[in-house]
Amino acid sequence: MTDLTPNSSYSLKIRLELPNRAGTLATVTQAIASVGGNLGEINLVERTHRITIREITVDAASTEHNEKIVQAVKALPDIKVLEVYDQTFNLHRRGKISVESRIEIRNQADLAMAYTPGVGRVSKAIADEPEEIYNLTIKQNTVAIVTDGSAVLGLGNLGPGGALPVMEGKAMLFKAFAGLDAFPICLATQDTEEIIQTVKNIAPVFGGVNLEDISAPRCFEIERRLRQELDIPVFHDDQHGTAIVTQAALYNALKLVKKPLEGVRIAINGAGAAGVAIARLLRKAGANTIWLCDSRGIISTQRLDLTAEKLEFAVEASGTLADALAGADVFIGVSVPGVVTPDMIRSMAADPIVMAMANPIPEIQPELVKDDVAVMATGRSDYPNQINNVLAFPGVFRGALDCRASDITSKMYLEAASAIASLVAPHELHREHIIPSVFDPRVSVAVAAAVQQAARADGIARA
Amino acid sequence: MTDLTPNSSYSLKIRLELPNRAGTLATVTQAIASVGGNLGEINLVERTHRITIREITVDAASTEHNEKIVQAVKALPDIKVLEVYDQTFNLHRRGKISVESRIEIRNQADLAMAYTPGVGRVSKAIADEPEEIYNLTIKQNTVAIVTDGSAVLGLGNLGPGGALPVMEGKAMLFKAFAGLDAFPICLATQDTEEIIQTVKNIAPVFGGVNLEDISAPRCFEIERRLRQELDIPVFHDDQHGTAIVTQAALYNALKLVKKPLEGVRIAINGAGAAGVAIARLLRKAGANTIWLCDSRGIISTQRLDLTAEKLEFAVEASGTLADALAGADVFIGVSVPGVVTPDMIRSMAADPIVMAMANPIPEIQPELVKDDVAVMATGRSDYPNQINNVLAFPGVFRGALDCRASDITSKMYLEAASAIASLVAPHELHREHIIPSVFDPRVSVAVAAAVQQAARADGIARA
Repeated sequence: MTDLTPNSSYSLKIRLELPNRAGTLATVTQAIASVGGNLGEINLVERTHRITIREITVDAASTEHNEKIVQAVKALPDIKVLEVYDQTFNLHRRGKISVESRIEIRNQADLAMAYTPGVGRVSKAIADEPEEIYNLTIKQNTVAIVTDGSAVLGLGNLGPGGALPVMEGKAMLFKAFAGLDAFPICLATQDTEEIIQTVKNIAPVFGGVNLEDISAPRCFEIERRLRQELDIPVFHDDQHGTAIVTQAALYNALKLVKKPLEGVRIAINGAGAAGVAIARLLRKAGANTIWLCDSRGIISTQRLDLTAEKLEFAVEASGTLADALAGADVFIGVSVPGVVTPDMIRSMAADPIVMAMANPIPEIQPELVKDDVAVMATGRSDYPNQINNVLAFPGVFRGALDCRASDITSKMYLEAASAIASLVAPHELHREHIIPSVFDPRVSVAVAAAVQQAARADGIARA
Repeated sequence: MTDLTPNSSYSLKIRLELPNRAGTLATVTQAIASVGGNLGEINLVERTHRITIREITVDAASTEHNEKIVQAVKALPDIKVLEVYDQTFNLHRRGKISVESRIEIRNQADLAMAYTPGVGRVSKAIADEPEEIYNLTIKQNTVAIVTDGSAVLGLGNLGPGGALPVMEGKAMLFKAFAGLDAFPICLATQDTEEIIQTVKNIAPVFGGVNLEDISAPRCFEIERRLRQELDIPVFHDDQHGTAIVTQAALYNALKLVKKPLEGVRIAINGAGAAGVAIARLLRKAGANTIWLCDSRGIISTQRLDLTAEKLEFAVEASGTLADALAGADVFIGVSVPGVVTPDMIRSMAADPIVMAMANPIPEIQPELVKDDVAVMATGRSDYPNQINNVLAFPGVFRGALDCRASDITSKMYLEAASAIASLVAPHELHREHIIPSVFDPRVSVAVAAAVQQAARADGIARA
């Protein structure tokens, strides 16, 4: 199973010296094209009467593909490869976020107000009236992104260090899409109780906690306990972010095929954090028939190996993933690459909706079944209908923090999903456009408003 | 004991409406001056033929003084006070720091490199080669500012919320003076073991840990254990920051009075975090005669109430603080306001050096003994010779992080102190100038260089 499409996550910058004569650049671009590299910018760095130096950006599909492209260029006569940069690694050097002062310190007067002795008065004001922490500190706009590194993206247990680049990226998204200040907390423990205790201990600085990339089933207990024991919103994005956006996409896909949520049979593959949360939210939204599958097949009442979370969804039916898909209206994949075959898709009910969201490679490549499905969605940005959590979590926290919600409830999830779905107007709705773009600036605003409204309805807004 | 000098920590902005005729502004400035307010900027906001609106900035000496100034202005005929802002509180609204992206996210290509799927390659690189975390994440430039809020400034146990404005201020100083990214961790526990465990759990993201405002004696154990159990530098600023700057000032003060450190008798009042650390560093630097005092007087071998740290400095002598000062060459105060009288100072040896650093009000007001001392230093910015930790901690961490020191040693403290002292050139050295200004841009550079050199000498630099 390989990554089929060149994309900027495997982007190279190649610095070349070419003889300064007509046609040499053409041989380079041809060589790159012949091995499937996707050309981006071509910059002229320097030109003398004898040579030119150029920097060429090329998207590839994998590390091996990167290597193949560089070899193809190196094989050309008269052309010298001066340097090859991996653009993704370049961008990560020294980290992707910084902590900045909101006020400049230029002189003693600034120091005396921002720090001692002036700050002492502010500290006393908070000690006297604890709610003032929301007015006089960063708490009102600050989110902890907490991980133990046990389930980093689809890559597994990389530990806290391996998780850090992801959490920094997440902090960037919080800023870019909702103006929130988020800071990565990567824990050197994977013990449930210790994680809970550590997060409780560091909570005073934060207005909310975003749990991230913590493996199931520990993630369920950690989230449940922290929601109970902290007075700030706690949100496990791998569960609820995914569930909200999936729900939003499904609302719109069902409109297209004119089936009611209550009447469809939904097969979900993957019974980890995302799968369980999706199933729970679908049920809250009104879905009646959900067949959840894990690597051993349908979660059946006949099985004896079920966790508490899986038991919630045990059904009379039993069998393999293929059995679950036969006759199903909707397939939702939050599992592993390539486990669904075209034949399985063809065995589904009429007008099947397929959301194959394994990352970075879906359960089935869209190309293989494009004429067999009514709607196809994936987790990828290079296909239509990207199911991306960034549609949800920035607005969810923006809304929750703005109304000082003490918790995040499933009503808030459902309202967020409806808000996202509603941004695709009826006349825009199309099998290749069931969900707004992550760069649609209305998204986080609409989600935040919906979440605030739900918080007020639930009586958990404190401001 | 009151705060004698108006300063910007009690700065007000008063918005006034005055009749538009000659002399009315003069009556306002006169009224403010008559109650001791210190005028800053006077801005004209609006002027019609009938009225003018102005904003006047006034420094006061206390909250009561603020009130007195406002009342004096309100008592004037024909003048309307439209609004009064407390400038310090204004500056703290919504917090003083933010988390920013170092790279903009404008499109799918940016997303694919900074976040999924590209970030996965970076995460794997770190999981495969853990040292890469220093190249590919924020760790190399990031410091945790950890407190439990048990000893906030001189204000006592304000808890984690009350401590947060101070820690935000500290983060600003790390940025302004050393370009470091520091983030506040305010703990909801004051249990020694739980603090240690929590800091160890969150350590992966950080290149260093600055402990702050943790009360003695717990601070000693917490620092000792974290230094032992973590592979990144851990530095309790209330101890070592204070000790480094005190040592630097003392080096220069002793040059002025021409006494060798080895020969002087030093009385220290205050045997908490700062007092013990100062005594320890003085001893490392060569001081032979140190009489440490706490609230019960001289730490004497005859006393039965001594902690392990105090026992290190128990002496044959016994008696009160006054007894300790009689005949002493140097007084170092890290205790409480007003405990030293002019008579005690006059009982010291010839050319006494007095460093009265209780904050914000010193052990003795400089005005009271200005003709009786050779050198006077305080912790305040409105008197000469301010002993301010900001001279030390930014450069200490800059140096330690730049060479990836695995620890911070007393050699590093001593070299930092010498570096600070050396920035006052012989021809500049004067009883009112024994220490550089906190705004001298050479300070953190010199301290960082000295700290790096010491780390290399101690064999603990890893880069």
